[in-house]
Amino acid sequence: MPKEIIREREAALYQTAAYLFNKDGYASTSMRKICRSIGIRESSLYHYIRGKEDLLYDICERSMRLSLEAIGPIVQSPLRPDLKLQEMIETHVTTIAQNTNEHSTMLKRLRSLSLSNQHKIIKLRDQYEAMFREVMADCVQKKLFRGVDVKITTLALLGMMNWLIHWYSPQGPMKSEEIGRIFSDLFLKGLQRRK
Amino acid sequence: MPKEIIREREAALYQTAAYLFNKDGYASTSMRKICRSIGIRESSLYHYIRGKEDLLYDICERSMRLSLEAIGPIVQSPLRPDLKLQEMIETHVTTIAQNTNEHSTMLKRLRSLSLSNQHKIIKLRDQYEAMFREVMADCVQKKLFRGVDVKITTLALLGMMNWLIHWYSPQGPMKSEEIGRIFSDLFLKGLQRRK
Repeated sequence: MPKEIIREREAALYQTAAYLFNKDGYASTSMRKICRSIGIRESSLYHYIRGKEDLLYDICERSMRLSLEAIGPIVQSPLRPDLKLQEMIETHVTTIAQNTNEHSTMLKRLRSLSLSNQHKIIKLRDQYEAMFREVMADCVQKKLFRGVDVKITTLALLGMMNWLIHWYSPQGPMKSEEIGRIFSDLFLKGLQRRK
Repeated sequence: MPKEIIREREAALYQTAAYLFNKDGYASTSMRKICRSIGIRESSLYHYIRGKEDLLYDICERSMRLSLEAIGPIVQSPLRPDLKLQEMIETHVTTIAQNTNEHSTMLKRLRSLSLSNQHKIIKLRDQYEAMFREVMADCVQKKLFRGVDVKITTLALLGMMNWLIHWYSPQGPMKSEEIGRIFSDLFLKGLQRRK
Protein backbone atom coordinates (compact mmCIF):
# COMPACT_ATOMS: atom_id res chain seq x y z
CA MET A 1 0.00 0.00 0.00
CA PRO A 2 1.42 3.48 -0.84
CA LYS A 3 2.85 5.28 2.18
CA GLU A 4 0.61 8.26 1.62
CA ILE A 5 -2.55 6.19 1.96
CA ILE A 6 -1.18 4.54 5.11
CA ARG A 7 -0.50 7.97 6.59
CA GLU A 8 -3.97 9.21 5.69
CA ARG A 9 -5.58 6.15 7.26
CA GLU A 10 -3.44 6.55 10.37
CA ALA A 11 -4.58 10.17 10.69
CA ALA A 12 -8.24 9.15 10.26
CA LEU A 13 -7.73 6.45 12.87
CA TYR A 14 -6.23 8.87 15.41
CA GLN A 15 -8.94 11.45 14.82
CA THR A 16 -11.78 8.95 15.14
CA ALA A 17 -10.31 7.25 18.19
CA ALA A 18 -9.66 10.60 19.87
CA TYR A 19 -13.22 11.67 19.15
CA LEU A 20 -14.62 8.49 20.72
CA PHE A 21 -12.21 8.39 23.72
CA ASN A 22 -13.14 11.98 24.35
CA LYS A 23 -16.89 11.54 24.00
CA ASP A 24 -17.44 8.13 25.62
CA GLY A 25 -14.31 7.58 27.71
CA TYR A 26 -11.47 5.13 27.18
CA ALA A 27 -12.97 2.07 28.91
CA SER A 28 -16.28 2.42 27.04
CA THR A 29 -14.66 2.67 23.60
CA SER A 30 -13.87 -0.74 22.10
CA MET A 31 -11.56 -1.36 19.16
CA ARG A 32 -14.59 -2.80 17.37
CA LYS A 33 -16.44 0.52 17.77
CA ILE A 34 -13.46 2.48 16.45
CA CYS A 35 -13.22 0.16 13.41
CA ARG A 36 -16.92 0.45 12.71
CA SER A 37 -16.68 4.25 12.82
CA ILE A 38 -13.86 4.35 10.27
CA GLY A 39 -15.30 1.54 8.19
CA ILE A 40 -12.39 -0.93 8.36
CA ARG A 41 -12.15 -4.49 9.63
CA GLU A 42 -10.62 -5.06 13.06
CA SER A 43 -7.94 -7.30 11.52
CA SER A 44 -6.78 -4.46 9.21
CA LEU A 45 -6.48 -2.12 12.19
CA TYR A 46 -3.48 -4.03 13.47
CA HIS A 47 -1.48 -3.00 10.40
CA TYR A 48 -1.38 0.45 11.97
CA ILE A 49 -1.26 -0.09 15.71
CA ARG A 50 -0.60 -2.79 18.26
CA GLY A 51 -3.57 -2.23 20.55
CA LYS A 52 -5.92 0.21 22.26
CA GLU A 53 -3.39 1.49 24.77
CA ASP A 54 -0.89 2.18 21.98
CA LEU A 55 -3.56 4.11 20.17
CA LEU A 56 -4.26 6.25 23.24
CA TYR A 57 -0.54 6.74 23.82
CA ASP A 58 0.04 7.79 20.19
CA ILE A 59 -2.78 10.33 20.39
CA CYS A 60 -1.38 11.84 23.60
CA GLU A 61 2.18 11.86 22.26
CA ARG A 62 1.14 13.40 18.94
CA SER A 63 -0.85 16.11 20.71
CA MET A 64 2.14 17.06 22.87
CA ARG A 65 4.59 16.94 19.94
CA LEU A 66 2.35 19.28 17.93
CA SER A 67 2.27 21.73 20.84
CA LEU A 68 6.02 21.55 21.47
CA GLU A 69 6.85 22.00 17.78
CA ALA A 70 4.53 24.99 17.52
CA ILE A 71 5.93 26.78 20.58
CA GLY A 72 9.61 25.81 20.36
CA PRO A 73 10.64 28.22 17.57
CA ILE A 74 8.94 31.15 19.36
CA VAL A 75 10.88 30.46 22.56
CA GLN A 76 14.12 30.24 20.58
CA SER A 77 13.43 33.46 18.63
CA PRO A 78 15.12 36.78 19.49
CA LEU A 79 11.76 38.43 20.33
CA ARG A 80 11.28 40.43 23.53
CA PRO A 81 9.94 38.00 26.17
CA ASP A 82 6.51 39.62 26.57
CA LEU A 83 6.01 39.47 22.79
CA LYS A 84 7.18 35.85 22.89
CA LEU A 85 4.55 35.10 25.51
CA GLN A 86 1.91 36.83 23.43
CA GLU A 87 2.74 34.67 20.42
CA MET A 88 2.95 31.53 22.55
CA ILE A 89 -0.56 32.16 23.91
CA GLU A 90 -2.03 32.79 20.47
CA THR A 91 -0.27 29.75 19.02
CA HIS A 92 -1.33 27.48 21.88
CA VAL A 93 -4.97 28.50 21.49
CA THR A 94 -5.04 27.83 17.74
CA THR A 95 -3.13 24.54 18.16
CA ILE A 96 -5.73 23.31 20.66
CA ALA A 97 -8.60 24.61 18.52
CA GLN A 98 -7.33 22.73 15.47
CA ASN A 99 -7.03 19.43 17.33
CA THR A 100 -9.59 19.68 20.11
CA ASN A 101 -10.27 15.94 20.34
CA GLU A 102 -6.60 14.94 20.49
CA HIS A 103 -5.77 17.59 23.12
CA SER A 104 -8.86 16.80 25.09
CA THR A 105 -8.00 13.07 25.07
CA MET A 106 -4.47 13.84 26.20
CA LEU A 107 -5.68 16.09 29.00
CA LYS A 108 -8.65 14.00 30.17
CA ARG A 109 -7.74 10.36 29.45
CA LEU A 110 -4.07 10.28 30.44
CA ARG A 111 -4.81 8.17 33.50
CA SER A 112 -6.03 5.30 31.35
CA LEU A 113 -2.42 4.75 30.21
CA SER A 114 0.00 2.44 31.99
CA LEU A 115 2.10 4.25 34.58
CA SER A 116 5.26 4.16 32.44
CA ASN A 117 3.38 5.62 29.45
CA GLN A 118 1.78 8.25 31.70
CA HIS A 119 5.24 9.30 32.82
CA LYS A 120 6.46 9.74 29.25
CA ILE A 121 3.54 12.05 28.43
CA ILE A 122 3.88 13.94 31.72
CA LYS A 123 7.55 14.51 30.87
CA LEU A 124 6.51 16.18 27.60
CA ARG A 125 3.88 18.23 29.44
CA ASP A 126 6.48 19.33 31.97
CA GLN A 127 8.77 20.39 29.13
CA TYR A 128 5.97 22.41 27.65
CA GLU A 129 5.02 24.05 30.94
CA ALA A 130 8.69 24.85 31.59
CA MET A 131 8.86 26.84 28.34
CA PHE A 132 6.01 29.08 29.47
CA ARG A 133 7.53 29.39 32.94
CA GLU A 134 10.91 30.39 31.56
CA VAL A 135 9.54 33.08 29.29
CA MET A 136 7.32 34.37 32.09
CA ALA A 137 10.30 34.45 34.49
CA ASP A 138 12.27 36.35 31.85
CA CYS A 139 9.45 38.93 31.65
CA VAL A 140 9.55 39.38 35.43
CA GLN A 141 13.32 39.53 35.53
CA LYS A 142 13.41 42.18 32.77
CA LYS A 143 10.71 44.14 34.69
CA LEU A 144 8.25 43.85 31.82
CA PHE A 145 5.88 42.23 34.34
CA ARG A 146 5.19 42.82 38.01
CA GLY A 147 6.94 40.50 40.45
CA VAL A 148 4.36 37.70 40.24
CA ASP A 149 4.63 34.09 41.40
CA VAL A 150 5.81 32.56 38.12
CA LYS A 151 4.74 28.99 38.87
CA ILE A 152 1.14 29.77 39.86
CA THR A 153 0.78 32.39 37.13
CA THR A 154 1.89 29.86 34.50
CA LEU A 155 -0.67 27.37 35.81
CA ALA A 156 -3.33 30.10 35.69
CA LEU A 157 -2.42 30.83 32.06
CA LEU A 158 -2.36 27.17 31.00
CA GLY A 159 -5.72 26.62 32.69
CA MET A 160 -7.29 29.58 30.95
CA MET A 161 -6.11 28.24 27.59
CA ASN A 162 -6.60 24.50 28.07
CA TRP A 163 -10.14 24.99 29.33
CA LEU A 164 -11.01 25.62 25.69
CA ILE A 165 -11.45 21.87 25.30
CA HIS A 166 -14.67 22.24 27.33
CA TRP A 167 -16.31 25.03 25.36
CA TYR A 168 -14.62 25.73 22.03
CA SER A 169 -16.43 24.70 18.87
CA PRO A 170 -15.14 25.31 15.32
CA GLN A 171 -18.77 26.10 14.49
CA GLY A 172 -18.90 28.78 17.21
CA PRO A 173 -19.22 32.50 16.45
CA MET A 174 -15.57 33.33 17.17
CA LYS A 175 -12.44 32.16 15.36
CA SER A 176 -9.67 30.65 17.45
CA GLU A 177 -7.25 33.39 16.31
CA GLU A 178 -9.58 35.97 17.80
CA ILE A 179 -9.93 34.02 21.06
CA GLY A 180 -6.12 33.78 21.19
CA ARG A 181 -5.81 37.55 20.83
CA ILE A 182 -8.40 38.19 23.55
CA PHE A 183 -6.56 35.81 25.89
CA SER A 184 -3.12 37.28 25.26
CA ASP A 185 -4.50 40.80 25.60
CA LEU A 186 -6.29 39.90 28.83
CA PHE A 187 -3.30 38.17 30.29
CA LEU A 188 -0.70 40.72 29.25
CA LYS A 189 -2.53 43.96 29.80
CA GLY A 190 -4.93 42.97 32.55
CA LEU A 191 -8.52 43.91 32.99
CA GLN A 192 -8.54 47.12 34.97
CA ARG A 193 -8.43 50.54 33.39
CA ARG A 194 -5.11 52.31 33.68
CA LYS A 195 -5.12 55.19 36.11
CA MET B 1 -30.21 4.22 62.46
CA PRO B 2 -29.75 7.80 63.78
CA LYS B 3 -30.00 10.45 61.05
CA GLU B 4 -26.56 11.80 61.87
CA ILE B 5 -24.88 8.48 61.15
CA ILE B 6 -26.80 8.14 57.89
CA ARG B 7 -25.63 11.61 56.86
CA GLU B 8 -22.02 10.81 57.78
CA ARG B 9 -22.15 7.57 55.80
CA GLU B 10 -23.68 9.37 52.85
CA ALA B 11 -20.88 11.93 52.92
CA ALA B 12 -18.25 9.16 53.08
CA LEU B 13 -19.98 7.42 50.19
CA TYR B 14 -19.96 10.56 48.00
CA GLN B 15 -16.35 11.32 48.78
CA THR B 16 -15.14 7.79 48.08
CA ALA B 17 -17.19 7.43 44.90
CA ALA B 18 -16.01 10.84 43.64
CA TYR B 19 -12.41 9.87 44.37
CA LEU B 20 -12.78 6.61 42.40
CA PHE B 21 -14.80 8.10 39.49
CA ASN B 22 -12.18 10.78 39.24
CA LYS B 23 -9.18 8.47 39.42
CA ASP B 24 -10.38 5.44 37.41
CA GLY B 25 -13.29 6.81 35.38
CA TYR B 26 -17.00 6.09 35.71
CA ALA B 27 -17.19 2.92 33.57
CA SER B 28 -14.23 1.32 35.37
CA THR B 29 -15.59 1.95 38.87
CA SER B 30 -18.04 -0.73 39.99
CA MET B 31 -20.44 -0.45 42.92
CA ARG B 32 -18.60 -3.42 44.42
CA LYS B 33 -15.32 -1.47 44.33
CA ILE B 34 -16.94 1.56 45.98
CA CYS B 35 -18.41 -0.66 48.73
CA ARG B 36 -15.09 -2.37 49.32
CA SER B 37 -13.37 1.02 49.67
CA ILE B 38 -15.83 2.23 52.31
CA GLY B 39 -16.09 -1.14 54.01
CA ILE B 40 -19.83 -1.75 53.65
CA ARG B 41 -21.79 -4.55 51.97
CA GLU B 42 -23.30 -3.86 48.56
CA SER B 43 -26.78 -4.61 49.90
CA SER B 44 -26.42 -1.87 52.57
CA LEU B 45 -25.42 0.65 49.91
CA TYR B 46 -28.93 0.67 48.51
CA HIS B 47 -30.22 2.21 51.74
CA TYR B 48 -28.52 5.38 50.59
CA ILE B 49 -28.78 5.42 46.82
CA ARG B 50 -30.64 3.78 43.98
CA GLY B 51 -27.72 3.01 41.70
CA LYS B 52 -24.40 4.12 40.20
CA GLU B 53 -25.86 6.79 37.95
CA ASP B 54 -27.77 8.32 40.87
CA LEU B 55 -24.54 8.41 42.80
CA LEU B 56 -22.76 10.24 39.97
CA TYR B 57 -25.70 12.60 39.59
CA ASP B 58 -25.78 13.38 43.32
CA ILE B 59 -22.05 14.14 43.32
CA CYS B 60 -22.41 16.52 40.36
CA GLU B 61 -25.50 18.19 41.80
CA ARG B 62 -23.91 18.60 45.25
CA SER B 63 -20.78 20.12 43.73
CA MET B 64 -22.81 22.69 41.79
CA ARG B 65 -25.08 23.49 44.77
CA LEU B 66 -22.03 24.11 46.96
CA SER B 67 -20.63 26.51 44.35
CA LEU B 68 -23.93 28.33 43.84
CA GLU B 69 -24.53 28.68 47.58
CA ALA B 70 -21.02 30.05 48.10
CA ILE B 71 -21.24 32.65 45.32
CA GLY B 72 -24.92 33.66 45.55
CA PRO B 73 -24.65 35.92 48.63
CA ILE B 74 -21.65 37.76 47.14
CA VAL B 75 -23.57 38.52 43.94
CA GLN B 76 -26.55 39.76 46.00
CA SER B 77 -24.37 41.92 48.28
CA PRO B 78 -24.12 45.72 47.88
CA LEU B 79 -20.36 45.52 47.12
CA ARG B 80 -18.84 47.37 44.16
CA PRO B 81 -18.84 44.90 41.21
CA ASP B 82 -15.05 44.61 40.88
CA LEU B 83 -14.82 43.80 44.60
CA LYS B 84 -17.64 41.30 44.12
CA LEU B 85 -15.68 39.63 41.34
CA GLN B 86 -12.59 39.53 43.54
CA GLU B 87 -14.51 37.76 46.30
CA MET B 88 -16.20 35.43 43.83
CA ILE B 89 -12.82 34.34 42.44
CA GLU B 90 -11.33 33.75 45.88
CA THR B 91 -14.44 31.86 47.03
CA HIS B 92 -14.59 29.72 43.88
CA VAL B 93 -10.95 28.71 44.27
CA THR B 94 -11.33 27.66 47.91
CA THR B 95 -14.63 25.86 47.17
CA ILE B 96 -12.93 23.79 44.47
CA ALA B 97 -9.88 23.20 46.63
CA GLN B 98 -12.02 21.88 49.50
CA ASN B 99 -13.89 19.42 47.29
CA THR B 100 -11.46 18.67 44.46
CA ASN B 101 -12.76 15.15 43.77
CA GLU B 102 -16.43 16.17 43.62
CA HIS B 103 -15.71 19.15 41.36
CA SER B 104 -13.40 17.14 39.21
CA THR B 105 -16.01 14.39 38.83
CA MET B 106 -18.65 16.97 37.92
CA LEU B 107 -16.38 18.60 35.36
CA LYS B 108 -14.85 15.45 33.86
CA ARG B 109 -17.49 12.72 34.19
CA LEU B 110 -20.66 14.62 33.31
CA ARG B 111 -21.00 12.81 30.00
CA SER B 112 -21.47 9.48 31.76
CA LEU B 113 -24.89 10.70 32.96
CA SER B 114 -28.09 10.15 30.98
CA LEU B 115 -28.90 13.08 28.69
CA SER B 116 -31.73 14.34 30.90
CA ASN B 117 -29.48 14.29 33.97
CA GLN B 118 -26.69 15.98 32.00
CA HIS B 119 -29.11 18.77 31.11
CA LYS B 120 -30.06 19.34 34.75
CA ILE B 121 -26.39 19.76 35.73
CA ILE B 122 -25.62 21.91 32.69
CA LYS B 123 -28.52 24.16 33.72
CA LEU B 124 -26.88 24.69 37.13
CA ARG B 125 -23.52 25.32 35.47
CA ASP B 126 -25.12 27.87 33.15
CA GLN B 127 -26.66 29.62 36.17
CA TYR B 128 -23.26 29.74 37.80
CA GLU B 129 -21.51 31.05 34.69
CA ALA B 130 -24.25 33.67 34.25
CA MET B 131 -23.49 35.08 37.72
CA PHE B 132 -19.86 35.68 36.76
CA ARG B 133 -20.90 37.12 33.42
CA GLU B 134 -23.38 39.54 35.00
CA VAL B 135 -20.88 40.86 37.53
CA MET B 136 -18.23 41.17 34.82
CA ALA B 137 -20.68 43.03 32.54
CA ASP B 138 -21.49 45.34 35.44
CA CYS B 139 -17.76 46.08 35.87
CA VAL B 140 -17.50 46.97 32.17
CA GLN B 141 -20.68 49.03 32.21
CA LYS B 142 -19.48 51.02 35.26
CA LYS B 143 -16.12 51.55 33.49
CA LEU B 144 -14.22 49.74 36.23
CA PHE B 145 -12.92 47.43 33.47
CA ARG B 146 -11.92 48.01 29.86
CA GLY B 147 -14.53 47.19 27.23
CA VAL B 148 -13.72 43.48 27.03
CA ASP B 149 -15.75 40.66 25.48
CA VAL B 150 -17.64 39.56 28.60
CA LYS B 151 -18.51 36.05 27.38
CA ILE B 152 -14.98 35.02 26.37
CA THR B 153 -13.43 36.76 29.38
CA THR B 154 -15.76 34.85 31.73
CA LEU B 155 -14.77 31.58 30.07
CA ALA B 156 -11.11 32.55 30.42
CA LEU B 157 -11.62 33.20 34.13
CA LEU B 158 -13.57 30.00 34.77
CA GLY B 159 -10.90 28.03 32.91
CA MET B 160 -8.10 29.55 34.93
CA MET B 161 -9.90 28.61 38.16
CA ASN B 162 -11.36 25.21 37.22
CA TRP B 163 -8.02 23.98 35.90
CA LEU B 164 -7.06 23.67 39.57
CA ILE B 165 -8.59 20.19 39.49
CA HIS B 166 -5.57 19.13 37.43
CA TRP B 167 -2.80 20.45 39.65
CA TYR B 168 -3.99 21.50 43.10
CA SER B 169 -3.05 19.35 46.06
CA PRO B 170 -3.97 20.11 49.70
CA GLN B 171 -0.46 18.84 50.50
CA GLY B 172 1.09 21.40 48.11
CA PRO B 173 3.22 24.32 49.30
CA MET B 174 0.51 26.96 48.79
CA LYS B 175 -2.85 27.32 50.54
CA SER B 176 -5.94 27.69 48.38
CA GLU B 177 -6.67 31.12 49.90
CA GLU B 178 -3.29 32.31 48.67
CA ILE B 179 -3.88 30.86 45.18
CA GLY B 180 -7.28 32.58 45.13
CA ARG B 181 -5.66 35.93 45.96
CA ILE B 182 -3.01 35.48 43.25
CA PHE B 183 -5.72 34.66 40.71
CA SER B 184 -7.96 37.58 41.60
CA ASP B 185 -5.00 39.93 41.64
CA LEU B 186 -3.80 38.63 38.27
CA PHE B 187 -7.20 38.83 36.72
CA LEU B 188 -8.18 42.21 38.12
CA LYS B 189 -4.94 44.09 37.86
CA GLY B 190 -3.31 42.35 34.96
CA LEU B 191 0.30 41.44 34.51
CA GLN B 192 1.98 44.40 32.94
CA ARG B 193 3.52 47.20 34.87
CA ARG B 194 1.57 50.42 34.87
CA LYS B 195 3.13 53.19 32.86
